[in-house]
Amino acid sequence: MDGSGVKAKETTDSTKVVGLVIGALLVTLSVLMLVPILAEIVARTGDWEAFLFSAVITAFVGGVLMLSNQTESRDLNHRATFMVTSLGWLTVSAFSALPFVFSLVDMNYTDAFFEAVSGVTTTGSTVMIGLDRTPPGLLLWRSLLQWMGGVGIILTAVAILPFLRVGGMQLFRTESSDRSEKVLPRPGQIAVAIGEVYLLLTLLCALAYIVGGMSPFDAMNHAMSTISTGGYSTHDTSFGYFDNAFIHWTAVVFMISGALPLALYVQTLRGVGETLWDDPQVRSFVAMLAGVSVVMALWLAARGDYGFFEALTLTAFNVTSIVTTTGFASTDYTLWGPFAIMAFFILMFLGGCTGSTSGGMKMFRLQILGILFKSQIRQTLYPHVAQTLRYGERTVNREIVFSVALFVFVYLASILVVALALAAFGLDLVTALSSAVTAMANVGPGLGHEVGPSGNFANIPDGPKLILAFAMLLGRLELLTVLVMFSKDYWAR
Amino acid sequence: MDGSGVKAKETTDSTKVVGLVIGALLVTLSVLMLVPILAEIVARTGDWEAFLFSAVITAFVGGVLMLSNQTESRDLNHRATFMVTSLGWLTVSAFSALPFVFSLVDMNYTDAFFEAVSGVTTTGSTVMIGLDRTPPGLLLWRSLLQWMGGVGIILTAVAILPFLRVGGMQLFRTESSDRSEKVLPRPGQIAVAIGEVYLLLTLLCALAYIVGGMSPFDAMNHAMSTISTGGYSTHDTSFGYFDNAFIHWTAVVFMISGALPLALYVQTLRGVGETLWDDPQVRSFVAMLAGVSVVMALWLAARGDYGFFEALTLTAFNVTSIVTTTGFASTDYTLWGPFAIMAFFILMFLGGCTGSTSGGMKMFRLQILGILFKSQIRQTLYPHVAQTLRYGERTVNREIVFSVALFVFVYLASILVVALALAAFGLDLVTALSSAVTAMANVGPGLGHEVGPSGNFANIPDGPKLILAFAMLLGRLELLTVLVMFSKDYWAR
Repeated sequence: MDGSGVKAKETTDSTKVVGLVIGALLVTLSVLMLVPILAEIVARTGDWEAFLFSAVITAFVGGVLMLSNQTESRDLNHRATFMVTSLGWLTVSAFSALPFVFSLVDMNYTDAFFEAVSGVTTTGSTVMIGLDRTPPGLLLWRSLLQWMGGVGIILTAVAILPFLRVGGMQLFRTESSDRSEKVLPRPGQIAVAIGEVYLLLTLLCALAYIVGGMSPFDAMNHAMSTISTGGYSTHDTSFGYFDNAFIHWTAVVFMISGALPLALYVQTLRGVGETLWDDPQVRSFVAMLAGVSVVMALWLAARGDYGFFEALTLTAFNVTSIVTTTGFASTDYTLWGPFAIMAFFILMFLGGCTGSTSGGMKMFRLQILGILFKSQIRQTLYPHVAQTLRYGERTVNREIVFSVALFVFVYLASILVVALALAAFGLDLVTALSSAVTAMANVGPGLGHEVGPSGNFANIPDGPKLILAFAMLLGRLELLTVLVMFSKDYWAR
Repeated sequence: MDGSGVKAKETTDSTKVVGLVIGALLVTLSVLMLVPILAEIVARTGDWEAFLFSAVITAFVGGVLMLSNQTESRDLNHRATFMVTSLGWLTVSAFSALPFVFSLVDMNYTDAFFEAVSGVTTTGSTVMIGLDRTPPGLLLWRSLLQWMGGVGIILTAVAILPFLRVGGMQLFRTESSDRSEKVLPRPGQIAVAIGEVYLLLTLLCALAYIVGGMSPFDAMNHAMSTISTGGYSTHDTSFGYFDNAFIHWTAVVFMISGALPLALYVQTLRGVGETLWDDPQVRSFVAMLAGVSVVMALWLAARGDYGFFEALTLTAFNVTSIVTTTGFASTDYTLWGPFAIMAFFILMFLGGCTGSTSGGMKMFRLQILGILFKSQIRQTLYPHVAQTLRYGERTVNREIVFSVALFVFVYLASILVVALALAAFGLDLVTALSSAVTAMANVGPGLGHEVGPSGNFANIPDGPKLILAFAMLLGRLELLTVLVMFSKDYWAR
């Protein structure tokens, strides 16, 4: 780092590694594109060519990137890590859109890009109408995007974001470097262990869906979009298609499973370190879901249309779906009136646990702010007593509070900026605001007639579709990872 | 503080001082109630009895409070200061409602309380229809409430809030204790100097309105509600009644004057310390207003209905009115379409400068968050370089950032909680959300058909009216001042 020659060499190497990694991602993606071909061959719907074309193009571009960026180095510097993270997610989304374009459903590229980004970021907003008549290959592709996107964000959250000090996630770096080091010594092993748990949960979920009466194809697709808290369905009416409380409660259980920190499963299974039920984030998250579901069920039952258990099935499913940022719907809850609409609007902001597939603000950030609130009240009353902030067994330092606070502020400000941009294209306040929140928090449905749980994003103009797609990526990568690249400092030599 | 006997004595004394101060506030209020009697005598509308009754009741209660809390002590402890601030504002509002109840317009107490709180907090939301036919005494009373509320909040913000360490305002305590001490040695002198500037600005504003063609009565009333960034008008159509660009631009200038830190006028006039135009808060605030007004004027003119200057008069007036949290309207800007509606929704959150009469988040908090943003981007790129946060010439310490961040979070969370409560009474999302923001930020009008700039709060139910009145007080007292009293720690012995 002392000589400028060394630095220039390092920068060139880093740029080459960025190209190499993105090339490798594309080649992997092209292999993944071959999977839906199997479904098409079985179903004989004749849409296999779309995937073959897409795979060839993607493999070609990926291969060229890999060959033209050969380097001995495997080191990414700090700046290049930001680059590879943002650019990797963007490029994978852009190429994942190809099968939609080449498919028999014949989408334009904007719609295809929206659908692909919504898939990869596990958002689940859709522009497709007539899912029940869509070729199975494409349905499987949508589910696969969410499933791979889910495991992708967990690995990004576990391996990359804490080191970039984004949004207070350094709190979790401390954990894995200090305490769990002996359990999970190397990133590679963490990744494999998390992948195994993720696969296991998906298989369990699919099995439960089949027991509940879903067809194996539906079960497989919904299992993938449940564990990834993605929300793509194979039916226009989403889970409303399955009039079956067992299936709905199965979904509740596995949506929650997907919204918990995956690394904690590994620790729990190995019996070392903090277990799932010891974790302050998990406890508060589950308690919050239970509390909100029960209160809303009591309220819904009191209105007289449903008995309590029926009401609880409805509220537990839809509340869990929104808070875990999955985005399935079992009914149009916006028909429950203003109170429900406002409640779901607020729930859209929250999100699940850090280190999971879910989006939003995340429970731990809300908890840090809660801890800050209590400490500030004390500080106000006892100005001369020094306060130490504690989160479970961890000490919360100044840096953590600063980045959590900044994350929340930038998150909310970005939502307003996105909403303003959408409104400039003529979207009304409810549609614009709820679309901005649902995209940024990677939830899925918005509110209002057009983009609400019984509508979709098909009829909004192209401009807003592109804005929302970028908002999904921005939210998925916890904002700062992307925004840092727009700063002067980032490009300063 | 060592013996419990001393502590008990101290607490009793503090409680007595609370009673004494509130009693004195009520007696002062009762004297103020005599002013509209003069207007009624001149106008011969026969509504003078309402003010006489109210003054007698208020003076009686105030007198009893003062007599029953006689004490030698003049010391308020920390806890009692919170109490006297919250309770003082609440009590004054409660008694200020009396003239509305006894008046010929014959309001129920809920409406009267809403109107009084909206006045005293300089919010300016109204439940009154037919202002043009309302007895002049009551119109004058509304303007007086805003004018006195305006000077009241400046004194609270200058003298009390910084010492309670609420919402990052300790930043300004440092200033007045370190640097301006020689200029303004004692709180009493600060208060007098600020009062003089406030009166001078009001007289200048009234004079300008008269020059522009307003009747002296209208000019006086509007001057009071302009400088206090209150927003009560003597006409149902607010400034739409005056089809006169000179009057509109006069209002723009004086709304801005009211939204600047009043203490800086004193410093500027005395030529000591930081002047108005050196202050980072003032510069950014004025630049932001100018920028937003011009951009919106270009956009509005491009739509083709107005020429640029006409458009600029409209946007400058209405943008300034919302951002300074005054709440006058010169036209129904919600008819300009979704982009304008969303823009005004966002503008409602912001607010003017700290130490002024305006509400909202305040420019300095946005600036502190902006500084935090830049520093965090740097920290992310250069993790090992220590960052010092600077605001103008001041160093921003950890405590300031914590309380600013907490303020913003509690402010936004409170808005959502209030909106949820309003929605439970059946208010739709746009009405509930915009009413919550407008009340908490002390702006005035909301959005949507019902509470938008051409509607008012007359037709919303009693429950929401009371919720909004408390939200106005909560917002006016910068949240923590009130919320601290709901904590266990506050009541712990």
